[in-house]
Amino acid sequence: MKASKFYISTFKEAPAEAELTSHKLMIRAGLIKKLGSGLYTWMPMGLRVLKKIENTIREEMQQAGAVELLMPAIQPAELWEETGRWELFGPQMLKISDRHDRPFCFGPTHEEVITDLVRNELNSYKQLPMNFYQIQMKFRDEIRPRFGVMRAREFLMKDAYSFHADIESLKHTYDLMFKAYNAIFTKLGLIFRAVQADNGAIGGDGSHEFHVLADSGEDEIVYDEHSDFAANIEVAKDHPDKRNLKTCRGIEVGHIFQLGTKYSEAMKATFINQSGKPSPMIMGCYGIGVSRIIAAAIEQNHDDKGIIFPESMAPFEVIITPIGYDKSSSVKEGVDDLYQLLIAEGYDVLLDDRGLRPGIMFSEAELIGIPHRITVSETTLKENKYEYKNRSKTDAEMIASNDLIRHLKSV
Amino acid sequence: MKASKFYISTFKEAPAEAELTSHKLMIRAGLIKKLGSGLYTWMPMGLRVLKKIENTIREEMQQAGAVELLMPAIQPAELWEETGRWELFGPQMLKISDRHDRPFCFGPTHEEVITDLVRNELNSYKQLPMNFYQIQMKFRDEIRPRFGVMRAREFLMKDAYSFHADIESLKHTYDLMFKAYNAIFTKLGLIFRAVQADNGAIGGDGSHEFHVLADSGEDEIVYDEHSDFAANIEVAKDHPDKRNLKTCRGIEVGHIFQLGTKYSEAMKATFINQSGKPSPMIMGCYGIGVSRIIAAAIEQNHDDKGIIFPESMAPFEVIITPIGYDKSSSVKEGVDDLYQLLIAEGYDVLLDDRGLRPGIMFSEAELIGIPHRITVSETTLKENKYEYKNRSKTDAEMIASNDLIRHLKSV
Repeated sequence: MKASKFYISTFKEAPAEAELTSHKLMIRAGLIKKLGSGLYTWMPMGLRVLKKIENTIREEMQQAGAVELLMPAIQPAELWEETGRWELFGPQMLKISDRHDRPFCFGPTHEEVITDLVRNELNSYKQLPMNFYQIQMKFRDEIRPRFGVMRAREFLMKDAYSFHADIESLKHTYDLMFKAYNAIFTKLGLIFRAVQADNGAIGGDGSHEFHVLADSGEDEIVYDEHSDFAANIEVAKDHPDKRNLKTCRGIEVGHIFQLGTKYSEAMKATFINQSGKPSPMIMGCYGIGVSRIIAAAIEQNHDDKGIIFPESMAPFEVIITPIGYDKSSSVKEGVDDLYQLLIAEGYDVLLDDRGLRPGIMFSEAELIGIPHRITVSETTLKENKYEYKNRSKTDAEMIASNDLIRHLKSV
Repeated sequence: MKASKFYISTFKEAPAEAELTSHKLMIRAGLIKKLGSGLYTWMPMGLRVLKKIENTIREEMQQAGAVELLMPAIQPAELWEETGRWELFGPQMLKISDRHDRPFCFGPTHEEVITDLVRNELNSYKQLPMNFYQIQMKFRDEIRPRFGVMRAREFLMKDAYSFHADIESLKHTYDLMFKAYNAIFTKLGLIFRAVQADNGAIGGDGSHEFHVLADSGEDEIVYDEHSDFAANIEVAKDHPDKRNLKTCRGIEVGHIFQLGTKYSEAMKATFINQSGKPSPMIMGCYGIGVSRIIAAAIEQNHDDKGIIFPESMAPFEVIITPIGYDKSSSVKEGVDDLYQLLIAEGYDVLLDDRGLRPGIMFSEAELIGIPHRITVSETTLKENKYEYKNRSKTDAEMIASNDLIRHLKSV
């Protein structure tokens, strides 16, 4: 992508209301723009990050046997009345009346809708297990939206729902999802921890949260250095005999639940079991806060110059910052060749062809957090070299032109 | 994709309320499932079609210089009050109050939001022109939702908005969009026509609609066989001297507008022009009904057996229908090799490994409308042949195994 064909908009200052580092940096780097309280536009730079995370999630979900669909955002109240959650869910639910005064909500979650779908689609143990997922904007009417996309009202979520004939099948899929979540957060380049959680309002047995570790995280995590025990603080409080426990702070980005039959019983989602008798389906559900991952990643990976994106979710992997692109034909030629070479090697490249001064180009690239920066000038070309700067290192280094690709792959 | 890892759900009968062929076939082929009036879940098979259309649109929009972003679905009323459309838009707008009783709507379109964004982002002629687009669920509270996704309430739309310093720049981008739309509908394999349209409620000068031609289309199109004149019936009525005009029927899937300064003046979206003076930005907007395209494509391409998807939007390009996959090791081996070969050749392949009877497999493949069907059995393997059936042809034919790829590329 050439910068002149894209849209880059960075700011020196963040708005006063932005308290959290990730919120400040996402606004300053032009990833998001506020529309209203808890409502953000994903600017071109931010949308690229969101799409990369989406795709990583998709790959692993599909690998783990889940099948993607897309349910409506607007949901009829009747379904929520079947489970009693129309009243129970509370004011976080955005309730709506249509032109005929029929009650709906903007889906804060989709257990009711998927259970309704499945009770009409699946009716035999032979069709089970099934695991459906979607990636979709949800709305939760937070009383005090803040921290940018960390606690926005409209936010992107991956939600999966599995349906089973027996507990063993649920536990098997739960285990697949546990592994898929580990694979997702590992691929995204994040330091994270899976912790035991209680099931909260959603009901059922067996639950883990996935936390991105960051000192600024709002959740306290308790873990044992000498075993694999880790839990959120609520669960840990119920286990007072766990002596040498340490604590750290995390940002919840995923949550998996064994729901059991809470929804299937309330909504009469039954199947004919092997004995020929109707039986309520056993369910699991698996959420990831897709847009939240970006804020969490930034809380974990930044310095005083800006964001340090892990390569897998960076809006661009490489930025070429030419000096004299519009003045020197040798620079233009050398840079255009390099740009084509990097694309051919499969890199997602941004070529900053806007003719800005080097200092501005460099500080923008660092603010946005692009992992690899390659500077080309008449001087570097004469020496058959490139100036290479890794976003996570302090100093730039000179690399022989023909060694660049090997070097990029090694760092 | 192996069918056993996917979700296929077809029906012999369509619900009584489905009047239109595309509605019936989309339900029967398991592309969509109704949640409520004008609300549909995109089932795994349908979502694949939607994603393919999305990607074609993205490629051409990017090619034409538009930059993707993503605005919130939920919009504050204040912006709509600035243009007067909070009252004017009428009951199609789904109005919402949040927990603090502040008024919002589920965006039926995004002129106000993008104009607000741009007035805060762009302030000099040097930053113009800019063309932003998004692909997003919209909601229009139709009084009588019907015809499936043809006139659903929640629907997927591509909406683009361009901003210019002068009319010439608007006309240049409008022309790029006109060409991009032609490229999109051509790539999607549809027979369509661009027609002159009036600007309706949206205001401004210069507008074209893009119609997929189908006898069942609800719009009447007037055209001249001997020139390139084509218009919708409203515009044609204003031109009574158009003698040798013919008419046909179409389904509107795209609409491009030269908006002028209607929104920028109302919302004070100005830029500093070359004379150093503030001037309202000149705007264009460009919509495509993404989910509607599927219904329109089916109205144009079907027979009594089901859908005949153009290859570019088919959920899968090729289906392998093995006979004896779970019984014959030579069939399993031959089919698995073929499956890998087709994937390596870049085809999107569905392998029907569910062990169904041939008649059921064949009729499902025809109902869903997969362009190429390859049947493999012990008999075909012994003869070093495959049975090939093109969805748009009546009869199957025998193809030498080593000629298959060449044959697929030629049909």
